[in-house]
Amino acid sequence: MRHDVKNGDVVVLIDTSYRKYIVDTTGKTDKIKGVGVLDPTILIGKTYGSQIQIGTKLFWILLPSLQDNLQSIQRKAQIILAKDAAIIIMSCSINAGDIVLEAGTGSGSLTIALASAVAPDGQVISYDKREEFLTHAMKNIEAANLGKYVTPRVQDVTEGITETHLDAIILDIPNPWDAIEHVWNALKTGGYFASYSPLISQVEKTVKTLRGLPFIEIKTIEQLQRELIVSDYGTRPSFNMLGHTGYLTFARKIL
Amino acid sequence: MRHDVKNGDVVVLIDTSYRKYIVDTTGKTDKIKGVGVLDPTILIGKTYGSQIQIGTKLFWILLPSLQDNLQSIQRKAQIILAKDAAIIIMSCSINAGDIVLEAGTGSGSLTIALASAVAPDGQVISYDKREEFLTHAMKNIEAANLGKYVTPRVQDVTEGITETHLDAIILDIPNPWDAIEHVWNALKTGGYFASYSPLISQVEKTVKTLRGLPFIEIKTIEQLQRELIVSDYGTRPSFNMLGHTGYLTFARKIL
Amino acid sequence: MRHDVKNGDVVVLIDTSYRKYIVDTTGKTDKIKGVGVLDPTILIGKTYGSQIQIGTKLFWILLPSLQDNLQSIQRKAQIILAKDAAIIIMSCSINAGDIVLEAGTGSGSLTIALASAVAPDGQVISYDKREEFLTHAMKNIEAANLGKYVTPRVQDVTEGITETHLDAIILDIPNPWDAIEHVWNALKTGGYFASYSPLISQVEKTVKTLRGLPFIEIKTIEQLQRELIVSDYGTRPSFNMLGHTGYLTFARKIL
Amino acid sequence: MRHDVKNGDVVVLIDTSYRKYIVDTTGKTDKIKGVGVLDPTILIGKTYGSQIQIGTKLFWILLPSLQDNLQSIQRKAQIILAKDAAIIIMSCSINAGDIVLEAGTGSGSLTIALASAVAPDGQVISYDKREEFLTHAMKNIEAANLGKYVTPRVQDVTEGITETHLDAIILDIPNPWDAIEHVWNALKTGGYFASYSPLISQVEKTVKTLRGLPFIEIKTIEQLQRELIVSDYGTRPSFNMLGHTGYLTFARKIL
Repeated sequence: MRHDVKNGDVVVLIDTSYRKYIVDTTGKTDKIKGVGVLDPTILIGKTYGSQIQIGTKLFWILLPSLQDNLQSIQRKAQIILAKDAAIIIMSCSINAGDIVLEAGTGSGSLTIALASAVAPDGQVISYDKREEFLTHAMKNIEAANLGKYVTPRVQDVTEGITETHLDAIILDIPNPWDAIEHVWNALKTGGYFASYSPLISQVEKTVKTLRGLPFIEIKTIEQLQRELIVSDYGTRPSFNMLGHTGYLTFARKIL
Repeated sequence: MRHDVKNGDVVVLIDTSYRKYIVDTTGKTDKIKGVGVLDPTILIGKTYGSQIQIGTKLFWILLPSLQDNLQSIQRKAQIILAKDAAIIIMSCSINAGDIVLEAGTGSGSLTIALASAVAPDGQVISYDKREEFLTHAMKNIEAANLGKYVTPRVQDVTEGITETHLDAIILDIPNPWDAIEHVWNALKTGGYFASYSPLISQVEKTVKTLRGLPFIEIKTIEQLQRELIVSDYGTRPSFNMLGHTGYLTFARKIL
Repeated sequence: MRHDVKNGDVVVLIDTSYRKYIVDTTGKTDKIKGVGVLDPTILIGKTYGSQIQIGTKLFWILLPSLQDNLQSIQRKAQIILAKDAAIIIMSCSINAGDIVLEAGTGSGSLTIALASAVAPDGQVISYDKREEFLTHAMKNIEAANLGKYVTPRVQDVTEGITETHLDAIILDIPNPWDAIEHVWNALKTGGYFASYSPLISQVEKTVKTLRGLPFIEIKTIEQLQRELIVSDYGTRPSFNMLGHTGYLTFARKIL
Repeated sequence: MRHDVKNGDVVVLIDTSYRKYIVDTTGKTDKIKGVGVLDPTILIGKTYGSQIQIGTKLFWILLPSLQDNLQSIQRKAQIILAKDAAIIIMSCSINAGDIVLEAGTGSGSLTIALASAVAPDGQVISYDKREEFLTHAMKNIEAANLGKYVTPRVQDVTEGITETHLDAIILDIPNPWDAIEHVWNALKTGGYFASYSPLISQVEKTVKTLRGLPFIEIKTIEQLQRELIVSDYGTRPSFNMLGHTGYLTFARKIL
């Protein structure tokens, strides 16, 4: 069974070096860096999984994966990587239908991962006190076709949370400890808390604040990811490795 | 808003050392190791997030998290840990509604994580050629209340895959390379492949077989997870760390 | 050229599980746990590299390596492992003839590594304020045949350092920052400082104190070591790995 | 006690960004990249640990550390880093007076570390089949003032080893397994073998060859090193980290 690009699809073009370009077939003819001038309507009717030549280059046409969406976002701030987003979603038991709050939105990378996890009937409420970040992030989220699962809100999470009975709250702000009392009030019983912090002092303050409130299973981890390179020459770990992204602190609300 | 245990709920009892016991309120009075003799109906009407005394010990009552379910399964084989399951689900873009095949089932730990991700309208088809493993795993999956999202099948994946147009296929078998041609046939275009292998030679054979077929974005990673311990005495990484679980190899089907 | 055990040699007996027993051929007949009753004089005249049967077990006879000595010490406290001792010696440019101060002595494991590095014409001055630790450590150091390179001293390094113009000073105490002004005074210009601390707060205080004095190249690292297991079954990283030992902070004195 | 630069000293100039320049006071006026035109004799009589202005820049004057020497070598090939050299020296119990063979020489970085360890009365015999590498490496070794401890030899170690009764042999060649029988013959009983290999297949062949000969304590490890950054802003692991350098395989000769 072949599957063709339809009008309205958002697709990813992947070149032979695995660089990725998200394209909306309803968009206008535009110059895309790395692709050239492209009229998106020429993609309609092409078969998914086949290659198309644009200018002198060949591109595979696929529906965007979550990774494609994450790798294609325009960054305005340090983003949370897939390896960390994956553990957050798993550790917070985030599933379809959940109502989840995130603050701050940043460039929207975690928002995209969360929106994929709560779709098709959940919502991500995303706070950022900086309106220009929310506007920018929503463009990335719309490009990933996930806008309908995200409610942006210009709000400082350390000054209060409007929502209640939330399934999970995830913080990526410099001072998560200032929001934790609000977090406890806004979570449903048994709800999940996660915080992403690059600095050890941030972890310490967050953990100590969590311990002063009815939370259990307070735990902090870091994830290291290393590629294994298989070549004709032999197999070895990649020389390139990120030494650190952020610490992840988790907790669960009790009464 | 308080939230009480209802007849039919499956709950987790968590003791003050964070040991966990999954209990079905429709079950019979039974002796549970670590809890004592328990009539599950006494839990009905208790408030989620509160503590209950059973014998001389106190237990919090909560709805089971995905981690609670994973940590409570009876192991008959080495299980895939949450850190690896999380990356598999994220890297394969597994979402609500997806139809995913897994082989082999083992103790059902990955099955539970996959079932959570495809609920409420997807399915996990789980192959194992050993019927006793499937039977055992289904008990774990039922205990996690996820049975309706899993179709067990006594089948050797290296001998063929019955289903087609699958969103993703995940292998945890000793010889994944022997199944890869079947995998390509059974995946939809753009579908995702993942394989979990502890040994480097397994990775090499898998990657080389993938390269001989129309797959792109073939990549192998390993995940290391380390806890950061925050105590009154000071903060430090945990002395305990798993040196290795398995390598994760990913690929995506093209035409 | 065969090489035989002579009267006066200190040897290591290694069983087929690679457990090691340091034996002084001038010692008395004694019961050694894991070996049995042994008259050390029976070893004299045996060929190095050959096996000897003692009771029902076979043992290789070798001259002790540095690792044999480190693995055979009686522990009274957490010891500094070979991987960390190696980096300390390398980073502090410790060579034959150097005069090096260490505090505290602990069980003498780092002392043994340092003594090997400064032999045959250097000295390790080893401070510990707890006389029973010094006494115990000196037994380990004598067992490694390195006593003549070590000067033990019952002294609290945070209260002052008697020696001057030292080539290097290495601290393994809970509060290294309290000794750093003494360290600066006692080092020769260009001399090396190293500190071993398990906790991050210890590193922070140490680094900040170093920055307030004329030290350059202040740097903190951690070392992770993982074994690669090669077997007929396949190759993989070891499941066992130490998640953390201690952070190593280095600096060099200027004027 | 002040300590001044004397005619004949080799010194290191360290700028305020910790870039390092090894300078021989007996050298000629020369243009040094990063320093400018320098007449080395102006350094004579300056005090070690003080700063000197050259052009518009300030430099500390110190005796070169082992790390300074390693960081200053001109690279013609991938070098063995200090973290790996340190573990090799420690694991092979290399001490003053030892006679050690190394092959291949490469750029001479491991040679420098070994020469420091065997000084003042040992020797490093360094084989490389490529004469231009030996010539280049000897310049680096002379610059580190360690030439008298190194005997270069244009020889392919897989074709035979001339020396016997060696204390240790360290291989950094693509095919160490081809030299291991020669290694066994050339080592003294109880002597140490080490091999540095980036690829897993190299490790496998090496370990299997070692197992076919009288060697014990065959073990392969990898070392990961990560910096901990302490700043006013907070403490965190470095984002930069080498994912892999090489695997280190060790063994000890028996009869």
